[in-house]
Amino acid sequence: MKLGQVTIKDIARELNVSTSTVSRALKDYPGISDDTKKKVKDLAEKLHYRPNAVALSLRKSKSFTIGVIIPEVVHFFFSTVISGIEEIAYANGYNVILCQTNEKLQRELSSIETMLDNQIDGLLVSFSKETENFDHFTKLMEQNFPIVFFDRVPDIENTVNVTVNDFKGAYDATKHLIEQGYKNIIHLAGPKTLPISAKRKDGYKQALQDHQMILNPEWIIPCPIGTQEESYEITKTLFKSNENHPDAIFASNDIAAAGAMMAVKELGLKVPEDVGIVGFSNWQFSSMIDPPLSSVEQPGFEMGEKATAMLLEMIEKKKESNWEAKTIVLETELLVRKSSQK
Amino acid sequence: MKLGQVTIKDIARELNVSTSTVSRALKDYPGISDDTKKKVKDLAEKLHYRPNAVALSLRKSKSFTIGVIIPEVVHFFFSTVISGIEEIAYANGYNVILCQTNEKLQRELSSIETMLDNQIDGLLVSFSKETENFDHFTKLMEQNFPIVFFDRVPDIENTVNVTVNDFKGAYDATKHLIEQGYKNIIHLAGPKTLPISAKRKDGYKQALQDHQMILNPEWIIPCPIGTQEESYEITKTLFKSNENHPDAIFASNDIAAAGAMMAVKELGLKVPEDVGIVGFSNWQFSSMIDPPLSSVEQPGFEMGEKATAMLLEMIEKKKESNWEAKTIVLETELLVRKSSQK
Repeated sequence: MKLGQVTIKDIARELNVSTSTVSRALKDYPGISDDTKKKVKDLAEKLHYRPNAVALSLRKSKSFTIGVIIPEVVHFFFSTVISGIEEIAYANGYNVILCQTNEKLQRELSSIETMLDNQIDGLLVSFSKETENFDHFTKLMEQNFPIVFFDRVPDIENTVNVTVNDFKGAYDATKHLIEQGYKNIIHLAGPKTLPISAKRKDGYKQALQDHQMILNPEWIIPCPIGTQEESYEITKTLFKSNENHPDAIFASNDIAAAGAMMAVKELGLKVPEDVGIVGFSNWQFSSMIDPPLSSVEQPGFEMGEKATAMLLEMIEKKKESNWEAKTIVLETELLVRKSSQK
Repeated sequence: MKLGQVTIKDIARELNVSTSTVSRALKDYPGISDDTKKKVKDLAEKLHYRPNAVALSLRKSKSFTIGVIIPEVVHFFFSTVISGIEEIAYANGYNVILCQTNEKLQRELSSIETMLDNQIDGLLVSFSKETENFDHFTKLMEQNFPIVFFDRVPDIENTVNVTVNDFKGAYDATKHLIEQGYKNIIHLAGPKTLPISAKRKDGYKQALQDHQMILNPEWIIPCPIGTQEESYEITKTLFKSNENHPDAIFASNDIAAAGAMMAVKELGLKVPEDVGIVGFSNWQFSSMIDPPLSSVEQPGFEMGEKATAMLLEMIEKKKESNWEAKTIVLETELLVRKSSQK
């Protein structure tokens, strides 16, 4: 038996169990006893079993299916990306299957397994908030499996990515608030694990600095969960405890901005007169809330189109060497609505 | 060669082309010449090639993957259904793959092909607005392939379904408007092809009748596309051309209700003082618009859970006879907000 060519069948035969038992044991699924799981895993390790490796190298024909790993389909931005992906995929005779990770690493891992089992030709990925180790992607890339990352770019080498200029988007939003005459602008920051959160924070800081505004580190407030309820609570507490409360909020996404707006209004303050608010992502609801929310629009549809076009190119030109690392950066657009016009 | 056991390989061998060419030709993908497509299709017909049939009957092991066919992932209601589906699926060691049809029959057909190629164990389906013929589902059901329909129940026999009480939801919404003192209540109806549209319309009609209100057939206005822009235009035209304009709107979904609200406000009328509005589905944005929109909440998460639980039962108890036809009907809840309180 050659190293690295062990299959699930070999393990099943050796232990006299079914292949599906082996598969489930390796994936830690429920319904398999701990004893069996241990036996299977021990043997897999002993035999140097590598999941997918064999399947990938034995693959001959194309499935004309691409897989998309996405944190949340309900996220308006991601749903526009999906539309862009489907536009290009269907036009080229490819089908699209989606898996939602709900921002959970475990689901990301099992979604990738499922998609590979299903013989997808390539993968479009926006990884979860929990993902800090990218080994599951590097392993695939080492085998020249086509992957394009969108929106969230991993901190690893030789990736192909499509992202937006989050720094510039945040810079523009903050600059706009400064130009409207707001003096004390806080930032509701996104989850720390996401590079986009850091870029938006940096854009906010740079805009303040370029306009000779004081940067108060206490006014960069992390919203790790990213729900409306969270930013509502955070904003309410902050404004209640500060007699000299801030007069503007730049939130790293529209959900946080909407929560902050609810809190501010409930405290009897007026938007935009007393407090100006700008969000990020231009959700579907943002133009409909009261007052309509200014936001940074990201070209989601275009991102999906670009990412898919690059992926299909990689699939069609499948080759033995590494893909050329490449990052396409798309520009954002600030949509000024009533919430930030003093 | 036995009837019904012809595979793509047989066709490929006979015509001396690759299996992927045959597969793409049968699916009418681009990049295959019309001549080849004709040859492949003619031979497939001559040999009585039945897609999937063989794959399905030869299937031995489970993939622990279920497929979900959904019209639009961005639709808030559907996204909550997906969350419910994933909750039950993951807890039972199953993965979930999604395909979005964008309300197009052609994509529904190719999504099902893709999922079957990918060896899913069962299918959860909410069919597209374009789907009026259900042969692609009956064919699968005849082979005892596990399918559960959710939200949209097809007009065919022996299906397993989870739906909500659309009639009662619409009845409650209309009754509420009557009780608030509104006299001339119009209905913005949903796409005609969807049974849920008819049920919501019937609920509206029954509520008017039960309260001795006149039913003006002209005030049941179809919104076939279902976008905000469409209902905005329709409402604006209707209110402009009627001096005695309606004083209330029951829309078959919140998107249509939001479009109508925009039109009414733009004409200088006040909501809820001059015009009361109630939607259906309780979208995420509905509580945030101005004024907050009353809506009929559907138990999306529960629908996803129930549908998946039934599907897994069918998968685990896989049998030779037909599944027992069954429809679970979940109740809705009217959420009264400012838009309809006179």
